[in-house]
Amino acid sequence: MRTHYCGQLRAEHVGQTVTLFGWVDRRRDHGGVIFIDLRDRSGISQIVSDPERTPESYLPAGDLRNEYVVKITGRVTQRPPDSLNPRIPTGEVEIYADQIELLNAVRKPLPFQISVSETESVREELRLKYRYLDLRRERMSHNLQLRHQVIKAIRRFLEDQEGFIEVETPILTRSTPEGARDYLVPSRVNPGEFYALPQSPQLFKQLLMVSGFDRYYQVARCFRDEDLRADRQPEFTQLDMEMSFMDQEEVLALNEKLVCHIFKQVKGIDLPSPFPRLTYAEAMDRYGCDKPDTRYGLELVDVSDLMKDSGFKVFSGAVSSGGVVKVLPIPDGNAAISNVRIKPGGDLFREAAEAGAKGLAYIRVRENGEIDTIGAIKDNLSEAHKQALLERTGATEGHLLLFGAGDSPTVNKTLDRIRQFVARELQLIDPEKINLLWVTEFPMFEWNADEQRLEAMHHPFTSPFLEDAHDLKTARAQAYDIVFNGFEIGGGSLRIYQTELQKQVFEAIGLSDEEAQSKFGFLLEAFEYGTPPHAGIAYGLDRLVMLLAGEESIRDAIAFPKTQQARCLLTNAPSEVDGKQLKDLHIATIQKPKT
Amino acid sequence: MRTHYCGQLRAEHVGQTVTLFGWVDRRRDHGGVIFIDLRDRSGISQIVSDPERTPESYLPAGDLRNEYVVKITGRVTQRPPDSLNPRIPTGEVEIYADQIELLNAVRKPLPFQISVSETESVREELRLKYRYLDLRRERMSHNLQLRHQVIKAIRRFLEDQEGFIEVETPILTRSTPEGARDYLVPSRVNPGEFYALPQSPQLFKQLLMVSGFDRYYQVARCFRDEDLRADRQPEFTQLDMEMSFMDQEEVLALNEKLVCHIFKQVKGIDLPSPFPRLTYAEAMDRYGCDKPDTRYGLELVDVSDLMKDSGFKVFSGAVSSGGVVKVLPIPDGNAAISNVRIKPGGDLFREAAEAGAKGLAYIRVRENGEIDTIGAIKDNLSEAHKQALLERTGATEGHLLLFGAGDSPTVNKTLDRIRQFVARELQLIDPEKINLLWVTEFPMFEWNADEQRLEAMHHPFTSPFLEDAHDLKTARAQAYDIVFNGFEIGGGSLRIYQTELQKQVFEAIGLSDEEAQSKFGFLLEAFEYGTPPHAGIAYGLDRLVMLLAGEESIRDAIAFPKTQQARCLLTNAPSEVDGKQLKDLHIATIQKPKT
Repeated sequence: MRTHYCGQLRAEHVGQTVTLFGWVDRRRDHGGVIFIDLRDRSGISQIVSDPERTPESYLPAGDLRNEYVVKITGRVTQRPPDSLNPRIPTGEVEIYADQIELLNAVRKPLPFQISVSETESVREELRLKYRYLDLRRERMSHNLQLRHQVIKAIRRFLEDQEGFIEVETPILTRSTPEGARDYLVPSRVNPGEFYALPQSPQLFKQLLMVSGFDRYYQVARCFRDEDLRADRQPEFTQLDMEMSFMDQEEVLALNEKLVCHIFKQVKGIDLPSPFPRLTYAEAMDRYGCDKPDTRYGLELVDVSDLMKDSGFKVFSGAVSSGGVVKVLPIPDGNAAISNVRIKPGGDLFREAAEAGAKGLAYIRVRENGEIDTIGAIKDNLSEAHKQALLERTGATEGHLLLFGAGDSPTVNKTLDRIRQFVARELQLIDPEKINLLWVTEFPMFEWNADEQRLEAMHHPFTSPFLEDAHDLKTARAQAYDIVFNGFEIGGGSLRIYQTELQKQVFEAIGLSDEEAQSKFGFLLEAFEYGTPPHAGIAYGLDRLVMLLAGEESIRDAIAFPKTQQARCLLTNAPSEVDGKQLKDLHIATIQKPKT
Repeated sequence: MRTHYCGQLRAEHVGQTVTLFGWVDRRRDHGGVIFIDLRDRSGISQIVSDPERTPESYLPAGDLRNEYVVKITGRVTQRPPDSLNPRIPTGEVEIYADQIELLNAVRKPLPFQISVSETESVREELRLKYRYLDLRRERMSHNLQLRHQVIKAIRRFLEDQEGFIEVETPILTRSTPEGARDYLVPSRVNPGEFYALPQSPQLFKQLLMVSGFDRYYQVARCFRDEDLRADRQPEFTQLDMEMSFMDQEEVLALNEKLVCHIFKQVKGIDLPSPFPRLTYAEAMDRYGCDKPDTRYGLELVDVSDLMKDSGFKVFSGAVSSGGVVKVLPIPDGNAAISNVRIKPGGDLFREAAEAGAKGLAYIRVRENGEIDTIGAIKDNLSEAHKQALLERTGATEGHLLLFGAGDSPTVNKTLDRIRQFVARELQLIDPEKINLLWVTEFPMFEWNADEQRLEAMHHPFTSPFLEDAHDLKTARAQAYDIVFNGFEIGGGSLRIYQTELQKQVFEAIGLSDEEAQSKFGFLLEAFEYGTPPHAGIAYGLDRLVMLLAGEESIRDAIAFPKTQQARCLLTNAPSEVDGKQLKDLHIATIQKPKT
């Protein structure tokens, strides 16, 4: 029935009779001649109905309103020179409508405007409630088409160039050891028992390596019942990969090719490769975080050695109790950032406080290297200290130096946050820039102060560097994250494939044999039957698409997302259910629903 | 590190030094020379270690056992003429191993043999418990690679040739109206409320049409908490499609192209097209079922009109009470099937009884058209009846006629079952044959005797033929199933897209406005905002792969399936969980787990 999509028509089609289907994007009545912008997913064509040239379509055209669904048959015509529209690809032509058939009308007032010429900002609750209309708008239609292109590019690369096999792993399964909460599903036929929705296909993909699948991938739905932050969803999509017989260099090289392929296919961009690498230690040292945005400088400088014998007790005390003193030097910061903003009540102070710092010490560098700061610092800084400080930080006239002093995690967290805040405010970030980098050599473990024990930084199947294996507690892991403009978009590791080493790792995190058996018994048993060396990685696809689309929320990269209260405003899920349903599942609610 | 996969090596590689990774499929010691069949997912290569030619690899080769994981570097060599192996693609060459590195051993007795040369049949419980080893075996490795190829062929066709866009729809959602039981997921942040896992993406895909996506597809995980039959799983995979602005002919034509593409890509088979079509009424009439296997004849013959005034009360009584008398004529059935098997205690009787029949009347056709049957029939069949019967059924000497008499559903169910049973037993089915057909013009509704009401045969969004819409109760639906060798592999319909008609359908199935609002309110509201005509279809991918693989259970088409008790024998899901987890979810179990 349809001969063309609306967005396809060009000068070359002039003279052809075409049949189009679509929505009325808008209708204008120009002195007796009616113009309709007809929209489908491909774009817009201008339809003309004229009481003299196309009398049959004129009455129906007059009845059309925005978002009516119509079928239009007409002749493609060259637009007159004064009505060419170079802003749309079909702007050279218009279609004189011989017939217009109304297929469906709109019977309620639209909750918001949909037309491509509308730029109205709509509040998110309304967009989510009427998601089917929101998805009709250009922005979300584009985002989902982009998402499709990204996933398609990934599949083609992995299948055609790298021999990966897609395997589907179960959704109704057992808890996986990722640390976050599982969603549970009561079993009707096994009373009192529950499935868990997978936080990732981790165990299954490792088992597929034991099975010899060699290279596995899956665009996998994953589930985490977390307290939701801005960029989290109860369910999310992961590009999940696992491969056998590859070392870390091969894994990173393959993944760089994958990421370059995505950018080339989807954005037409040739990324420089190989990607830069930072070790975890370097990243923390220079940026205070393990996913630095390297599109701008503002690198941190460690001045602990200079300050350890300073008379300013905040600095020397921090060092003597095992902490650090680090500086964020901000060129031209003197002019841009006033003292009021750094002191209690100011916005920079608030940022620092939210990261756990008690405050921000500062030094302003004036003409001839004179420094300007509070008395307590000035009085306790010798000329030698001052010179060393300026030299180490590269600070010259106009620089503002912001100091963090205290335990290393808090200092890093604080200065990382301030660094990002200042970069945004001073517009140091070139939005056209695309920086990808690897962060490698993560520590195997981090200290969980609450539980007073080591815990695996990635997961307990991550392999240490073999040269570090003699002292696991301080060993580096063969783990890697890929960072895109300051967002971690993927991460993975080489896995342990030998039982002996796996036992040592469990021991290091205080997991008894019994606990290990009950949690991962089937995986440990599988490892006894000829397990190949293997490695993997997983990408957060929602976030990757969000970044590629230039959006700031992953909800704008997902067709039907949930709110931060884990609700779907469209279907109103979750909802109450029949008592009978619960009885069949052998469960009862122990708290009344809020009403 | 790896230079080739094991299955890739050919005569053209002779002289090259290669590095292979894989599993020892088997090891043979031939008078001091050791032969190893090295296996990876691509196939087998023969490795040779010889104390004189390859002294360095000889000791390690001697230590290898089945399923050890090794790295082997060696030189590809032409096999001597007497050891060529034409049964494997690499059978012209062997690799003299310079180095053999043991990467991992097997530390427990294998629960079953894995080698490609083993044809041992292993009981399914063991295969599922050690699924990672079962997947290493040739059969399952082949099945999952086939599954990957099928899905890949589908994606490429839909994306490249037909402009479909893949969109992911939620797994944590609200009940969909498919009739079966939902799996529920308690919400932690919304106490007393539950998500449902989708039985299909039906509502979301229709909403995507409202959004203008025009052509949607998804390889979608679906969930039904049914009492499990042999070919059902709690979670299964569906190829889900929906498209706008297409009539039924266009939908069927597109899907025929899709199915032909799959067969061509995966099996190298050119299917004849267009596929034959049967209306639902024809299918029930001729085969007694709506998914007939047309690879063989044995068509049913309705003789109700002939028998309505017969003196044999079983026949005439069936007709006079509104039922039917139908015949399954079996050529050469006299010789093949004895009376004992048709009478109580016999296997055919049992089949009939399981379909709800009280028994099977029969007539044997002897020489010169003489008939041989029980006295009650013989005595009550006039010569005219007899002649008409022989003529109508085409029965000649040697035919066995099996009769079903009673209400039409039971007669059809019985004779369908007997027809399939006899066809298998008499080996009337050519396993090489591939028959695809469409069944169309389903009734809109069927009578639910338990609830004393009409219910939608597909689902309540299915559109009637517009010429039938004046009397919905008897209307035919614009619904279609695709049948492959007697299995329904897919089905769909044109959807209702106009509110008025939708309301009439809800009325016909006795759904009040209120119920309709509470169940599908958001969909009905969406329909008010400019809904295009749309249609869809869904394929059962597990079953399609099962059939293409020549398997008889969908468990053999799924990587990690569940048993008929909905358990995963590998991970032992479902399982009991911590009381604290349940408390966090605001639920309690109301029945002790069985122990």
